[in-house]
Amino acid sequence: MKKEHDTQPGRRRVSASRPSHQRGTERPHGGHFSRPSRETTPSVPAVFDKNALRVIPIGGLEEVGRNMVAIEYGDNILIIDMGLQFPEEDMPGVDYIIPNIEYFKGKERNVLGVIITHAHYDHIGAIPHLIPRLANPPLYGTDLTLAIIKRRQEDFKEISSRLELHQITNDTKLELGIFKVEFFGVSHNIPGSVGVIVHTPEGILVHTGDFKIDERSNIAGVTELDKLERIGKHNPLLLMSDSTNAREIGKQHSEIDIMTELEDIVKNAKGRLIFGTFASLLGRLNEIIQLAAKYKKKLIIEGRSMKNNVEIAKELGYITVPKGTIIPVEEMKSYRNHEIMILATGAQGEERAVLMRIANREHRFIEVEPGDTFVFSSSVIPGNERTVQRLTDKLYREGVDVINYRMMDIHAGGHAKQEDLKKMIEIVKPRYFMPIEGNHSFLRIHGKIATRAGYADDKILVADNGQVIQCKGGICVRTKEKVPSDYVFVDGLGVGDVGDVVLRDRQMMAKDGMFVVIATFDNRTKRVMGNPDLISRGFIYMRESKELLMEVRRLVKRIVEQSAGNHAPGEINWTYIKDNIREEVGEFLYHKTHRHPMVLPVVIEV
Amino acid sequence: MKKEHDTQPGRRRVSASRPSHQRGTERPHGGHFSRPSRETTPSVPAVFDKNALRVIPIGGLEEVGRNMVAIEYGDNILIIDMGLQFPEEDMPGVDYIIPNIEYFKGKERNVLGVIITHAHYDHIGAIPHLIPRLANPPLYGTDLTLAIIKRRQEDFKEISSRLELHQITNDTKLELGIFKVEFFGVSHNIPGSVGVIVHTPEGILVHTGDFKIDERSNIAGVTELDKLERIGKHNPLLLMSDSTNAREIGKQHSEIDIMTELEDIVKNAKGRLIFGTFASLLGRLNEIIQLAAKYKKKLIIEGRSMKNNVEIAKELGYITVPKGTIIPVEEMKSYRNHEIMILATGAQGEERAVLMRIANREHRFIEVEPGDTFVFSSSVIPGNERTVQRLTDKLYREGVDVINYRMMDIHAGGHAKQEDLKKMIEIVKPRYFMPIEGNHSFLRIHGKIATRAGYADDKILVADNGQVIQCKGGICVRTKEKVPSDYVFVDGLGVGDVGDVVLRDRQMMAKDGMFVVIATFDNRTKRVMGNPDLISRGFIYMRESKELLMEVRRLVKRIVEQSAGNHAPGEINWTYIKDNIREEVGEFLYHKTHRHPMVLPVVIEV
Repeated sequence: MKKEHDTQPGRRRVSASRPSHQRGTERPHGGHFSRPSRETTPSVPAVFDKNALRVIPIGGLEEVGRNMVAIEYGDNILIIDMGLQFPEEDMPGVDYIIPNIEYFKGKERNVLGVIITHAHYDHIGAIPHLIPRLANPPLYGTDLTLAIIKRRQEDFKEISSRLELHQITNDTKLELGIFKVEFFGVSHNIPGSVGVIVHTPEGILVHTGDFKIDERSNIAGVTELDKLERIGKHNPLLLMSDSTNAREIGKQHSEIDIMTELEDIVKNAKGRLIFGTFASLLGRLNEIIQLAAKYKKKLIIEGRSMKNNVEIAKELGYITVPKGTIIPVEEMKSYRNHEIMILATGAQGEERAVLMRIANREHRFIEVEPGDTFVFSSSVIPGNERTVQRLTDKLYREGVDVINYRMMDIHAGGHAKQEDLKKMIEIVKPRYFMPIEGNHSFLRIHGKIATRAGYADDKILVADNGQVIQCKGGICVRTKEKVPSDYVFVDGLGVGDVGDVVLRDRQMMAKDGMFVVIATFDNRTKRVMGNPDLISRGFIYMRESKELLMEVRRLVKRIVEQSAGNHAPGEINWTYIKDNIREEVGEFLYHKTHRHPMVLPVVIEV
Repeated sequence: MKKEHDTQPGRRRVSASRPSHQRGTERPHGGHFSRPSRETTPSVPAVFDKNALRVIPIGGLEEVGRNMVAIEYGDNILIIDMGLQFPEEDMPGVDYIIPNIEYFKGKERNVLGVIITHAHYDHIGAIPHLIPRLANPPLYGTDLTLAIIKRRQEDFKEISSRLELHQITNDTKLELGIFKVEFFGVSHNIPGSVGVIVHTPEGILVHTGDFKIDERSNIAGVTELDKLERIGKHNPLLLMSDSTNAREIGKQHSEIDIMTELEDIVKNAKGRLIFGTFASLLGRLNEIIQLAAKYKKKLIIEGRSMKNNVEIAKELGYITVPKGTIIPVEEMKSYRNHEIMILATGAQGEERAVLMRIANREHRFIEVEPGDTFVFSSSVIPGNERTVQRLTDKLYREGVDVINYRMMDIHAGGHAKQEDLKKMIEIVKPRYFMPIEGNHSFLRIHGKIATRAGYADDKILVADNGQVIQCKGGICVRTKEKVPSDYVFVDGLGVGDVGDVVLRDRQMMAKDGMFVVIATFDNRTKRVMGNPDLISRGFIYMRESKELLMEVRRLVKRIVEQSAGNHAPGEINWTYIKDNIREEVGEFLYHKTHRHPMVLPVVIEV
């Protein structure tokens, strides 16, 4: 008969228990990933003031991504944006990170609406996961924004039902509970981008969304500074402004200059021209389409997301494609190389994306050839440097030309730089300024820009994720109240079920692998049956380590028989024995290899 | 009785066999990490020509790092450099990569000497691992180079015995077998750097090592162009030259300009000044020491490797420290903040290094304070971007100033740029040119510089790691012969025992964790005893997934009993059953979670 081993009540029978040095970390959240803060000790305020305005940045204030701000007054909650953040390198297997909406538990019905400023993933990415958990509040966005949200929603049929979508334009005015909402168009590298003006009982809030200021062209849309000037005359309470490029001095490039550089590349291409870029950079895609038409080239678009986005923008009239400019890839062979331009996904060296398949000769129709010119991002999303370097090396090996062009970067050209940011502050003239959308250091630097614009320190609110800003009687303060803002990980179908413990285990196994020890103890003979079984993965190559493994088997046998041999079946403390196996085998393996695999002891009693 | 399960001969009994989709990759090397090459199909040449010169780049031609070149003529082998390469992000747990020396098996006694150009890890790092396996050949280097090698060797007492070290100067002449060897000093960001001139029966080879050309100062040493001009008059056969900065246009900065910028920073500091940099950037460290003295500041050096290196350079007279400039950290409190400068390791955001401990308030003596100014690398070693960003955010949170200064970068300021590289080619005037030390794309770009200098394509040898260059009768060609150059991983005490299989397992477990299924089958009752045991790590949080786990238990029970129930004990095909468990459980878990943990089935027969 097989019996229960684990003496700890409530624990699973053969749960290979965790090494003691990891015990302290068995909390699903916190620990490694918490962001320490000197100034803002979290504490629940004594009273929730129903007659104060609360501005709560749920995400986007300690990172680029996961943008979400809540505006609350009494029973009225308005949310701006619902984005995702891409995982960092110590979060293996995580698909992305979404805002934490624990604060809204029990308040779901207070959420009057969710306004989406534009269709980039760091602003829309969490919608399928969070909207159902907020009792399906209505979503507001421009036509392009809504179309992209709708298209993406198709990939999430399993988890998310229909969305209630309401189309707005730059000139729409909404009443949502106590709030009155207006919009202003902004220039950004995707069309249909807006900023938001919220009239509250405590005054006017301005949220820029992502924006740039382009004084010389309207190619990437126009930031409606005239509207903001008018608002500026009404003594607005608070400006929340985009910090993505706050570290960059000077002004952002005009699209005219970007177009001129792109045009030089197109004009001078002797062979095929292959642009690797992001499907979401719709503004840039449009410019390339127009240049292809101007120079009578044929353009091929490869990559599902890129095709989709161009299709949507075309349908809505944001992109006009001159007839015959875009051709299906199958027709490429009918043209000479210098007549061909290709727009492809995969500028970050993604393994399965179009660019990599072209370079690897795995693409069905397009194969790299000497004479091709590849144009892609000069800088790279952190974590992707080496895959991009591999792609570049591969392409050079094929004898092609590679042009690294910064304006193919995802955050290049789309965000206001220091002088633009100063101008925004000076036009809106808010009583308080709050930098949003960026790492803490970006916010601080943005704060210094406000200082240059004449703001006193107490008028500049550099906050953390989750930190409640309270405004009452014309005074805004950063409170000590912090609502939950811990990471929520999306991994496959799971949302929030991967926490610190799971990630630490992954990191540990990634570093030194794991080592399962299985001993079958015969209660009758008081001996381990045969030899303990060992499974090693990611640690050593087993066939080459036979002697080491034999030593481990002897060690395990000795530990089990010495500890269990003298006890009656019911009296054996298997937890203690397993702890011993884990520690002694772990030490032995470290001594022999200087590696720390995760050791998992399993004892079967028969 | 417990019995053997696995029907495959020669395999371990309870080896949880690998999923079928991974089977194809069960080779210890190759696969994912091989570098495809269109031009150079490896093939062993029919005859090894004893009367030809063979130049074999073992490493450093497809990466920055792992530098090692062998020069072979008959029984004579000379090696230049023996460096390490830092692992890429898809090599979890690997400490570093060293050159593959399989080619020298059986030829160990032919290795007449190993010349080390300078003391950076990408040139010395593999010495402790490889020297013993080459029958301890003598090592040649300048005093500083040898001193740093000796100091590092102390960390490898377990694996490496005494080294035979021979000190050289820029003017030493050596006879090593058939080769005559001379040196030339080069300017680089560590003192005691040299290039190598090798006289061979087929002509003169020049190997630059790492170098820059600084026409305006000798602060970082002098590249002895006069010597090279003289060599240039003897019609040298082949120039091998540093490609690290081949992508950078123009000329490298003079140390005078770098000093001026550093001086501005020192002069303008209002509070403490904390430099985060690399222990190996001895040239830069020296400049900071001299500036501290000039401005009557007290300098504290923190970090073992940095202290060691400064100590060694001081002893050898490479650095002169004015009396009273460097103080122990304990005396910091005796001075006012603006009198203090600190040199610290950890500019890459390393978790345990000094800079991070200061930022985290975990350092024994130094705590970050408002008013401090931190100066560190503006660019970052690929893979470290986010840890550096975290460090930066932490520092900003403390209200300090952060200056990102590119000349604190490990490869900034130390390597020749395009115009310098062209000059080197024009001075040496080799018959053949071979770019070394860099990724393939860097070598190609360096090749184009040679084209600009007037070289025909067949005189420019862009080779791959392991590719044999053969020179005879004044003609050098890239042969189709490739000696082994696969990655050799160092992981703890293991060298070369971690291969592709182990790394793939680590990657798989890092992504989605693992899931062990343990079923005990009773041969008498033909039933699985109790419930199968499950261990999950890095996959899901078990306590929150009870229902899912119960379904898996039922599934496993059914698979085992259906497949094994009708067979006599000796006839059961356990391999087949385990494959079934792996596949069905894998599919079931994917369906439920969209994750692919590594499933390890274990069946115990009693």
